[in-house]
Amino acid sequence: MRLRNKKWTSPWLADHTDLVITQDRATGLQGNWQSIFEKVQPLYVEIGTGKGQFIIGMAKKYPEINFIGMEIQEGAVAVAARKADEDPVDLPNLKFIYGDGAGVETYFTKGEVSKLFLNFSDPWPKSRHETRRLTYKSFLEGYQAVLPAGGELEFKTDNRGLFEYSLYSFANFGIEFYKDGISLNLHEDEEKMKDNVETEYEQKFASQGFPIYKFTGAFK
Amino acid sequence: MRLRNKKWTSPWLADHTDLVITQDRATGLQGNWQSIFEKVQPLYVEIGTGKGQFIIGMAKKYPEINFIGMEIQEGAVAVAARKADEDPVDLPNLKFIYGDGAGVETYFTKGEVSKLFLNFSDPWPKSRHETRRLTYKSFLEGYQAVLPAGGELEFKTDNRGLFEYSLYSFANFGIEFYKDGISLNLHEDEEKMKDNVETEYEQKFASQGFPIYKFTGAFK
Repeated sequence: MRLRNKKWTSPWLADHTDLVITQDRATGLQGNWQSIFEKVQPLYVEIGTGKGQFIIGMAKKYPEINFIGMEIQEGAVAVAARKADEDPVDLPNLKFIYGDGAGVETYFTKGEVSKLFLNFSDPWPKSRHETRRLTYKSFLEGYQAVLPAGGELEFKTDNRGLFEYSLYSFANFGIEFYKDGISLNLHEDEEKMKDNVETEYEQKFASQGFPIYKFTGAFK
Repeated sequence: MRLRNKKWTSPWLADHTDLVITQDRATGLQGNWQSIFEKVQPLYVEIGTGKGQFIIGMAKKYPEINFIGMEIQEGAVAVAARKADEDPVDLPNLKFIYGDGAGVETYFTKGEVSKLFLNFSDPWPKSRHETRRLTYKSFLEGYQAVLPAGGELEFKTDNRGLFEYSLYSFANFGIEFYKDGISLNLHEDEEKMKDNVETEYEQKFASQGFPIYKFTGAFK
């Protein structure tokens, strides 16, 4: 989803540098992310946080976890951060990075991130764009570089082609598959839905009856 | 699918021992399966061949391959073999084993089978029946024992839970995933449908709009 940069976004982001960290500053925080949160506690990161519904929902649900939403689109990260900022619930455990998923290993040290989320990433369906998919091996190398051994990746999408490809990419990379780690119709799986936090996309597509695919696995 | 044993099946099978091999005889043929076919050519085996539509279709389509359909239910193997026997096309490249998939490594030597097919296997949905699923690791060990290194497994099912489980089981076993080896809605995939040979089940479920799942991968 592309959002047009509106006039308010750049000044708003400039006024909220405590909440939204730019790429330059993110690189400088490598190894020291706990210092910008109120409490030292596990850090979960979403790559491509869009308009933020998922990461805000997670931050509310799990106050004992620190969260970072990464987003490369200025319009989207501003919408997400403003939504968090205006929320009646104070969320000292949530920050955003206005930056690129490809740079994840330049922002964090090995083991600094406990868990990663990918939600409804751009499918890049053409073969020649394979390397741009957030589940392509070069991205997986980046994720592995910031997670501890056994660190988990959760991935949701409504895009069949991207999910088919990603399972191949995960298996080929040596990511550990869990026995109950794959759901080919998440919203028909009562047990897994208990803990599910929806994204904007997910709400829309699931309500139209399209299957939502989910994978949870661990880096070795 | 269970077929009741009808009166004709046992005498018919006794009269067609060239076409339908019993377990005892199958064990004796280990290493020598090419001797019962007209031509020495690669051997493909389907575990759980049901009423035979798939394996008969394959034998017609690929005369340059030898095929064996294995089936543990007497009623089903008799229906399948009679269908092959009564077919107007002569099929010297097709035989059946009236036997158990669990015994595959007692029927064939390493590398004697070039490729294996599993189609619409019993899902055994309860956790306590996991070990009965034809994609459980002990079965995979049996398949590996008869395939060469790089030997392929093709698996189709309409059962979501079985497919989710099987992907885990394949990845965990170290089966190689192919980049285009997973289809989460085979009948909407034009490219893959070109070569698709349908089973009875598949025809029925796909026509009702249910997705057919397919995996192709290789043993290392």
